[in-house]
Amino acid sequence: MSKRLKSFVEIAAHSDFPLENLPYGIFSEKHNSQPRAGVALGEWVIDLAVLEAHGYCKVADGKLLFNQPTLNMFIESGKTNWSKVRAELQALLSADNPDLRDNQTLRDQVFFKQSDVKMHIPVHISGYTDFYSSKEHATNVGCMFRDPKNALLPNWSELPVGYNGRASSVIVSGTDIVRPSGQIKLPDSERPVFSACRKLDFELETGFIVGKSSQLGQPVPIENAWDHIFGMVLFNDWSARDLQQWEYVPLGPFNAKTFASSISPWIVTLEALEPFKTSSPEQEPKPLAYLREDNSSNSYDIHLSVEIQPENDDKSDVICKTNFKYMYWSMAQQLTHHTIAGCNLQVGDLMGSGTISGPTPDSYGSLLEITWNATKPLTLSNGEQRNFIQDGDTIIMKGYCEKDDLRIGFGEVSGKILPAVDFGFTQ
Amino acid sequence: MSKRLKSFVEIAAHSDFPLENLPYGIFSEKHNSQPRAGVALGEWVIDLAVLEAHGYCKVADGKLLFNQPTLNMFIESGKTNWSKVRAELQALLSADNPDLRDNQTLRDQVFFKQSDVKMHIPVHISGYTDFYSSKEHATNVGCMFRDPKNALLPNWSELPVGYNGRASSVIVSGTDIVRPSGQIKLPDSERPVFSACRKLDFELETGFIVGKSSQLGQPVPIENAWDHIFGMVLFNDWSARDLQQWEYVPLGPFNAKTFASSISPWIVTLEALEPFKTSSPEQEPKPLAYLREDNSSNSYDIHLSVEIQPENDDKSDVICKTNFKYMYWSMAQQLTHHTIAGCNLQVGDLMGSGTISGPTPDSYGSLLEITWNATKPLTLSNGEQRNFIQDGDTIIMKGYCEKDDLRIGFGEVSGKILPAVDFGFTQ
Repeated sequence: MSKRLKSFVEIAAHSDFPLENLPYGIFSEKHNSQPRAGVALGEWVIDLAVLEAHGYCKVADGKLLFNQPTLNMFIESGKTNWSKVRAELQALLSADNPDLRDNQTLRDQVFFKQSDVKMHIPVHISGYTDFYSSKEHATNVGCMFRDPKNALLPNWSELPVGYNGRASSVIVSGTDIVRPSGQIKLPDSERPVFSACRKLDFELETGFIVGKSSQLGQPVPIENAWDHIFGMVLFNDWSARDLQQWEYVPLGPFNAKTFASSISPWIVTLEALEPFKTSSPEQEPKPLAYLREDNSSNSYDIHLSVEIQPENDDKSDVICKTNFKYMYWSMAQQLTHHTIAGCNLQVGDLMGSGTISGPTPDSYGSLLEITWNATKPLTLSNGEQRNFIQDGDTIIMKGYCEKDDLRIGFGEVSGKILPAVDFGFTQ
Repeated sequence: MSKRLKSFVEIAAHSDFPLENLPYGIFSEKHNSQPRAGVALGEWVIDLAVLEAHGYCKVADGKLLFNQPTLNMFIESGKTNWSKVRAELQALLSADNPDLRDNQTLRDQVFFKQSDVKMHIPVHISGYTDFYSSKEHATNVGCMFRDPKNALLPNWSELPVGYNGRASSVIVSGTDIVRPSGQIKLPDSERPVFSACRKLDFELETGFIVGKSSQLGQPVPIENAWDHIFGMVLFNDWSARDLQQWEYVPLGPFNAKTFASSISPWIVTLEALEPFKTSSPEQEPKPLAYLREDNSSNSYDIHLSVEIQPENDDKSDVICKTNFKYMYWSMAQQLTHHTIAGCNLQVGDLMGSGTISGPTPDSYGSLLEITWNATKPLTLSNGEQRNFIQDGDTIIMKGYCEKDDLRIGFGEVSGKILPAVDFGFTQ
């Protein structure tokens, strides 16, 4: 058990954001509404743009990396610089360093209460890709919609199945979502109807942020893939199940997903997650050579949960508890597979894990699975029932790692569903 | 028949770029390697950044729209300004206007031979979406891989099926393409092999460029959709058929498409295409209300062709002649459907038509269809045979409209296939 770091700032024992975490985000506040970079520490945000203006955390060429509306420039500065900045911040914020601790004027300028700031989307996302890498989730979906005896399609065990998502509709936690509308095919009618979505769902996922670009036509070998990953976020891949079922053959989900995808505002770096490395499930069959890596420490032990809070209810119900470590395909395997045919990656690209379901019903990462496609309704503590998400419901996802007395948390990603657009016509 | 415009510049009778066209692109040349905006006129590119610096084509607030590495800022200036700039350029370049005609100093600064310039990707593409809107193509594919009696899936006639593509790998005409590699499932083996693609294909498409952004949660009504389109390009949606067949179930094509997609460098505006408006095919069943529009003038009569030029061959063979007017779903229907669930669009987004096949084998827009999945090899004029694309082959797509003596052309989109990466391992 390694010695804990101690900051001059008071940090609650179960805070997601101890000095060992220092996740990056983009924030603004009432005195300065310009979005800029910060790190979270306890209940505080620390303004990196101001620290940078005072000569801290600077790169050799003097470029301003933190006085920016996204983290892309900082991420582009490279892995060596991520480590350097992290070490410098941990030293600057430590209890025994007087530089910032005893400089009240500067402290007043760089410390903001998280409850007083507005968080923004942390990176400019050029490309967003979603994978489908939980065996439990793919099996559940296969049982429901295909054949329980052959729930997994043959390609699933050979490659991390993924598809291109829509980057423009990736939004930050706290942004409301209008219930999508579109074509729904009901079993008893020959033609589809136009309707507000009746089977609105969440998908509990994590996402990783690409930290290093790659060139068109130049695949990233699996042994280099981890160097291309900056950090992780919580991710809610909102899904309109009824739109999806009608539209997705043969080219995959489209409007069922493109209306919104929510990410948590803080990017937790792989360095912060290092103590929580764990094995991923044994892969059988053994992947082809380009995807082969040692599975003993290519995953992370991250506890994940989903809560639902109905409108006008002051408490939420936890409806799922699962863990990232169930993922069958690793992030490195996903990234390498993404580039193997020649596709180029860009700093800031978001790659979703796919719904993370565990082995038991209380660990399923979507309502589709929890209610088994509306055949087993969920009863909430206020007595209401849910098959899918209702207007006014807020979905909250949380994540954290814990080992001995060290907790590294992700905060949360939340979103509330607003009623559908009134189109003023019937079909 | 309307009167033709006449420029003080000599323009060949069958040029793609008369004064009535004026397509926009981004170019650089040896004296100034900074990419900037230009229009094509005959065999010339006209430097809009220099014209702008001399007070021409300026917007009211004085912002520089053309001294930019992409056309996005100009496109964002809005439809009224597109018309204004077009009218101003047509007046400035006309035979009877002495302003530029008699100013040799300025003419020397703004006129460059197209053969002397390098063309760049014309817009920053945030989102790229590909549709599947040719009934002939969807039917051919359905006949080959599914059931000839039920070739079209039930959703195809109800909505413009589409999927999110990968924007980062959209490249400009003239960029070489490395043959993709990946997993291929051969019929006689239980597991996939890792291999260079053996069924590399083109897809003849057009694309349109979004000219006006829309907001998340706010669908674009069909009656406004045309106002959101700036112009059109030629588009080659390179496809690795063997990778696709193995990977695409259930989430759609991924590595089979993301290795490269090529666009022509010149964006032809909808204004320039106006004289070539035509009807699209009658839609049966009649679409749901949100997709309904008058089909009498919602398409364009654009002649399209594909040529293949083997390495070390000095001539190319035309292997497909078709027309944009065969498209079943209109660009407005594609755009509205894309937003109906709430997805936001951004200026510069690219939307591909889907492979444009006509009714006869000589009008099929892919080798998959032309050779009927390698069952009817194509014999080239040099005696060689092709089922799919070989290393060293260059694929050239051309497009133009013609009516009376007016020709509005797109130029071409071309790309040459380089050998696959040598991975140095076998699987």
